[in-house]
Amino acid sequence: MEKIKVGLIGFGTVGVGVVKALLEKSAQLERQVGARIVLKAICDKEFRRKRKIKVDRKLLTTDVNKILGNPDIDIVVELMGGVHPAKEFILKAIKSGQHVVTANKALLSESGEEIFDAAKKAGVEIFFEASVGGGIPIIKSLREGLVANEIDTILGIVNGTSNYILSSMAAEGLSFSDALAEAKKKGYAERNPSLDIEGRDSAHKLAILTLLGFGKAVKPEDIYIEGILDISQNDIKYAEEFGYSVKLLAIAKNVDGELEVRVHPTLLSKEHLLSSVDGVYNAIYLHGDMVGGALFYGRGAGQSPAASSVVSDIVDLARDLRFNSVGRVPIYLKNKSIKKIRKIDEIEARYYIRISCIDKPGVLAKVAGILGRHKISISSVGQKERRKARIVPVVLMTHEAKEKNMRQALEEINKLSAIRRKTVAIRVER
Amino acid sequence: MEKIKVGLIGFGTVGVGVVKALLEKSAQLERQVGARIVLKAICDKEFRRKRKIKVDRKLLTTDVNKILGNPDIDIVVELMGGVHPAKEFILKAIKSGQHVVTANKALLSESGEEIFDAAKKAGVEIFFEASVGGGIPIIKSLREGLVANEIDTILGIVNGTSNYILSSMAAEGLSFSDALAEAKKKGYAERNPSLDIEGRDSAHKLAILTLLGFGKAVKPEDIYIEGILDISQNDIKYAEEFGYSVKLLAIAKNVDGELEVRVHPTLLSKEHLLSSVDGVYNAIYLHGDMVGGALFYGRGAGQSPAASSVVSDIVDLARDLRFNSVGRVPIYLKNKSIKKIRKIDEIEARYYIRISCIDKPGVLAKVAGILGRHKISISSVGQKERRKARIVPVVLMTHEAKEKNMRQALEEINKLSAIRRKTVAIRVER
Repeated sequence: MEKIKVGLIGFGTVGVGVVKALLEKSAQLERQVGARIVLKAICDKEFRRKRKIKVDRKLLTTDVNKILGNPDIDIVVELMGGVHPAKEFILKAIKSGQHVVTANKALLSESGEEIFDAAKKAGVEIFFEASVGGGIPIIKSLREGLVANEIDTILGIVNGTSNYILSSMAAEGLSFSDALAEAKKKGYAERNPSLDIEGRDSAHKLAILTLLGFGKAVKPEDIYIEGILDISQNDIKYAEEFGYSVKLLAIAKNVDGELEVRVHPTLLSKEHLLSSVDGVYNAIYLHGDMVGGALFYGRGAGQSPAASSVVSDIVDLARDLRFNSVGRVPIYLKNKSIKKIRKIDEIEARYYIRISCIDKPGVLAKVAGILGRHKISISSVGQKERRKARIVPVVLMTHEAKEKNMRQALEEINKLSAIRRKTVAIRVER
Repeated sequence: MEKIKVGLIGFGTVGVGVVKALLEKSAQLERQVGARIVLKAICDKEFRRKRKIKVDRKLLTTDVNKILGNPDIDIVVELMGGVHPAKEFILKAIKSGQHVVTANKALLSESGEEIFDAAKKAGVEIFFEASVGGGIPIIKSLREGLVANEIDTILGIVNGTSNYILSSMAAEGLSFSDALAEAKKKGYAERNPSLDIEGRDSAHKLAILTLLGFGKAVKPEDIYIEGILDISQNDIKYAEEFGYSVKLLAIAKNVDGELEVRVHPTLLSKEHLLSSVDGVYNAIYLHGDMVGGALFYGRGAGQSPAASSVVSDIVDLARDLRFNSVGRVPIYLKNKSIKKIRKIDEIEARYYIRISCIDKPGVLAKVAGILGRHKISISSVGQKERRKARIVPVVLMTHEAKEKNMRQALEEINKLSAIRRKTVAIRVER
């Protein structure tokens, strides 16, 4: 019986899940591959911390060079995370002719093209299903299951922390900070949640989806990013009344050969299946010329879902090794028909606008006048409860408008004497 | 440049979609495979009917033996549908060493095991992504992306016609027959829709999902089937009030090593993402030991979605041919740990019950007494509007109960003098 030998770098939460599955499911995986997958080494900085798993101590090492370049290891599984030194480790493995499985979204979003090109040149495989959407097989679906399609739209809820916060703000009426505190308490938000709630984690995943879905590498600075920190309970409530949910979306669109890549809170019609994706779940909606609309949903993080993807990558790779079919599926194909990446000013969207003004007649007319001068037309208006408050919210939904025009209009609106707080604007997807 | 040669049998709606994609996307597909996919022959019974596509007339033939066993054709794509003679054609192709792509759910549900075993024996591939869920890559996900998982539950909305009817009954308040008439008018139901609305088409797809997800071949008679013909507007409305949608579900569950396979209308909690799958869309929810809950959603039928899956299968196969990796992924693995297939009497479920009785005090007590004697406990009751009607509906939701007990209880309830119509019972999924 042939053996496929695996070395693991990074023995954290996901690493433990992967080791557990490789050990407990070894017979099942052997039947799937027709060869035995053997764990040869586990590397981490320290092994003092207790892990909930029993492993042969002989496998453990703190020396990464016991794995990298070791001719007795076929597959290097990188689960340490972070850009450095993960990048150097992966490149060293590739140059040594070792195949790679990684879940490293930060690294692939920054250096995906470079790493994939290096793997191609070296004739080795790199698999990365767990880098986006946890256990959801979205990478495989883009590379294989939907290979006949030209994708024009990807909308992803790809950050469980942000989605949990927005969901509990909607379901329980919590403020952003209370919802964040609750998420931390339940272990759904890290102590320092900025990567998640500022939208950067979503942008990492969006870069990977964009490379696969559109064949275009985007640099971190090409992606417009807005987090969820400014989303208020009011906006969630008013959006609800208009028939929308507020979601942090990672959006990539090919609009007439120009690519839009952006992460921001978005009003999503209740009729869109994505609007029903709540809590820590992730989902990726896409639209292709043949398949039409399709959606993939599942747990976006956590030990077992991520390990599910890592192990399926290991099996995929092991099959390629057993059948000598390395390079069978191109990692991605460059798409030369994309002319440029649009700046945020150039996009067009519908907008939800909330104005906080002193309740005096005429202010709505002034606002409508400013919007009109900037070629923005209003589709509906709701003046909200006034009670005894001096400052009254007015909520508008617009038709499709240019972002640049909207920015200019907002600037003018905020200068009106009746406007007492900065106007809130949130983009809308259908 | 290597060539992969394809012969198509069945030039109907999906066949036209496949030919269109192979011709229009040939450059893109060639880059994906590293070899050219060449359409060598198209076989149908007749070519008088106009198709919306221009094809070289030299490709057309009414003689299937120009394709089957022709050493100049590598891949036979069977899109004629129906069990016979599709089965004989596919088996002949397999015996001739030709690889097969098919969308034939009726055939695979009946003879999947036989055909897959024949393919394995002959050392050829058979791909069938389009047989379940149209353009949704659910077959690939089960065979590859989720390969590390032990699946315990599959819940599928896999018949677009039924889902369209139930959705429009819910959204527009239509009766079953009006909703069916509308579906026919819009082309979402065939002139003879019995295969769809009686649940048999869903059962075909369930058999395929069960073979892949649970490694167990089930015979048509092993699957309990109830269609949607008896679903009334009342039940949809009352279900809604209790927080449920009514969906035709294809259900497979591994309960302690015993397999449940059934198709029937089901009350599904509004909190379940499947309950938001409306119209002609399909979705497959599954639960695995590692991935947890996951859902795949998309267009379940139609020319382009089905062709999307067929072409991705052709690409998959072409890659195997180019890399000489036929047999790389086992079609399915037999699971010997499943002890038996449960009869419907043996399952346990929660139930929605609607009783039509003369409104006299005491009838509810009698009903509760009968249920209690059969070990069925009630979780909630709603007595519906009475107006001037003599016959009043009473709606009950039960806790988990044995189907057998429920049947006996219903029989007794229906014999009560106060009960004026057959009691309706619909199973509930969480």
